[in-house]
Amino acid sequence: MSIERIEPGKHLSKAVVHNGIVYVAGQTANDSSQDMAGQTKQVVDAIDKFLEAAGTDKSKLLTAMVYITDMSMKGDMDSVWIPWIDSTNPPARACVGTNLGTGKLVEIVVSAAIK
Amino acid sequence: MSIERIEPGKHLSKAVVHNGIVYVAGQTANDSSQDMAGQTKQVVDAIDKFLEAAGTDKSKLLTAMVYITDMSMKGDMDSVWIPWIDSTNPPARACVGTNLGTGKLVEIVVSAAIK
Amino acid sequence: MSIERIEPGKHLSKAVVHNGIVYVAGQTANDSSQDMAGQTKQVVDAIDKFLEAAGTDKSKLLTAMVYITDMSMKGDMDSVWIPWIDSTNPPARACVGTNLGTGKLVEIVVSAAIK
Repeated sequence: MSIERIEPGKHLSKAVVHNGIVYVAGQTANDSSQDMAGQTKQVVDAIDKFLEAAGTDKSKLLTAMVYITDMSMKGDMDSVWIPWIDSTNPPARACVGTNLGTGKLVEIVVSAAIK
Repeated sequence: MSIERIEPGKHLSKAVVHNGIVYVAGQTANDSSQDMAGQTKQVVDAIDKFLEAAGTDKSKLLTAMVYITDMSMKGDMDSVWIPWIDSTNPPARACVGTNLGTGKLVEIVVSAAIK
Repeated sequence: MSIERIEPGKHLSKAVVHNGIVYVAGQTANDSSQDMAGQTKQVVDAIDKFLEAAGTDKSKLLTAMVYITDMSMKGDMDSVWIPWIDSTNPPARACVGTNLGTGKLVEIVVSAAIK
């Protein structure tokens, strides 16, 4: 079974495709001066980009793991998450509070089926 | 490859089935007044329910990711976990300490093969 | 679809193989007196061992989830990670800061395709 690696770099590949599933690396905001909603928007935009690179889209999401630095900001993350996901095809998700890189408020890891 | 979504909601699906695997969303206790053992029991009961909805059971668990708020309570979580799992078919597991929603002491994310 | 469990124990299997993928349980250092680089080396050595037991190797890594107790030590983890991974075949990865067992500085969870 072949493995396709999207934007392989020194530390990681931005996404890996195998057996009909794409695994997207953890995405954080490039501009970490933004607030939780703004950072979440950057994160989902990045995810959209890598899903497209793998030949799929958010309607095929299987799983999402959401890491946020402050659980009291979960609602702010969801204010972007809920409008973003395909409302009839939400992934299995969990959201937990962790530390992230300096200034980062949210990191999201997803997997999706290839169309 | 078709995707089946179990109890899709506004934020997430409670479980997603694709290519012979069910991915269950992160489960926490509904009654967060209970202690670690009590909350873990609620969590594994919920997991049993979603595995059954997907047509499988805990003997087919592949992975488990356990998030607890206090690593010193890992033994209390395990006091429920160990009797719960199929003793001859344990999943690959990791357990780390994170923040969770208010009052939540444990959250577990699993995947399982469909029978 | 059969499931192979590698070193099944009381809490978990060290690795689980299903449908062409091996899921390795979270690995931590046995000798937690070592620093981040030393612990990371122990972790990747353990991962190599379980990948080999499953009939594959690090060039087939799909995903990696890296948990470290102190995000300021990410560079020390990467000082071992970067030389370890197959430079042309890096996995999709995320790295977040969590609590771990006493003395543990790093835990890594991987999945890999079977050759």
